[in-house]
Amino acid sequence: MNFEEKTIEKESIYDGRIIRVEKHLVSLPNGNTAYREVVKHNGAVAICAVNPEGQVILVKQFRKPLEHELLEIPAGKLEIGEDREAAAKRELEEETGYRAKTLQHIGDIYGTPGFSNELISVYFTDDIEKGDMNLDADEFVEPILYSLSDVEEAVKTRKINDAKTLIAFQHLLLVYNHSK
Amino acid sequence: MNFEEKTIEKESIYDGRIIRVEKHLVSLPNGNTAYREVVKHNGAVAICAVNPEGQVILVKQFRKPLEHELLEIPAGKLEIGEDREAAAKRELEEETGYRAKTLQHIGDIYGTPGFSNELISVYFTDDIEKGDMNLDADEFVEPILYSLSDVEEAVKTRKINDAKTLIAFQHLLLVYNHSK
Repeated sequence: MNFEEKTIEKESIYDGRIIRVEKHLVSLPNGNTAYREVVKHNGAVAICAVNPEGQVILVKQFRKPLEHELLEIPAGKLEIGEDREAAAKRELEEETGYRAKTLQHIGDIYGTPGFSNELISVYFTDDIEKGDMNLDADEFVEPILYSLSDVEEAVKTRKINDAKTLIAFQHLLLVYNHSK
Repeated sequence: MNFEEKTIEKESIYDGRIIRVEKHLVSLPNGNTAYREVVKHNGAVAICAVNPEGQVILVKQFRKPLEHELLEIPAGKLEIGEDREAAAKRELEEETGYRAKTLQHIGDIYGTPGFSNELISVYFTDDIEKGDMNLDADEFVEPILYSLSDVEEAVKTRKINDAKTLIAFQHLLLVYNHSK
């Protein structure tokens, strides 16, 4: 079946610093038309890093859309033309001061495909060394360390509310369970 | 530490059918100011249902922001004032024709907390009966069934690109591994 929704008309609503908003009039498979609201984003990367003590390095930060803090694995926007693995290494070092020597790819995920094209590439590493922390001028994060049993407890009690972080935590539990 | 970013000025950019876009001038913890772009959404629900044959019921649909189809667990927007569990049951029945008798809560997740407040509640059920399929007028989905080994293979090969679906698949693998 071909469910493609071809754009008949496109209206640019907003061209911002991080997002671009568009409204598309589309033709539907049954011949009718509908409007689709689209938020375009350049993409992001996230990295679940385990330090030599076996602890996962997390950051807590205030997220304006939620009006509260959120516990997340280090993440950030992809710069234009930037390689995704390089971006993940850069974000880890900027936000935590650790440099990843090698990465494993957990997956590429759309968090809200209903209205946005933001694709987040999620990586794992336990191969890190000390580097240089260097936050953006408007970025404020608090580092938090989780043991593997903290990770297990947080998943079980549904305390992780960030999609990429829950994916990384479940990945850790699956990998550690399989290798036991 | 208090990282709260208080709004000094708010500009309404767009008030659409599914999203509202705002631009906030905020005060930062260091006394500086910054702009934050915020996409407000009423929230959504998603449900991972396993049929009596042990197959996960998925839907493939064209996602305009991505300009391609995506394989997902059944999901949909919360109606205003609607209970999240009731919405999950409604979406499952509308999109697949199955009615869930009971639900388990996997988690509540933000898919893109950097710019949007959309919270998706993810549920699991293997307690279903035949109901009535009833898609929205502008909704076109193709049902797909996955065995547990298809789920395991899809996670391992990183073929699932939808965050809520990957979370549900990893949950399935963790639960099945633990109960083995």
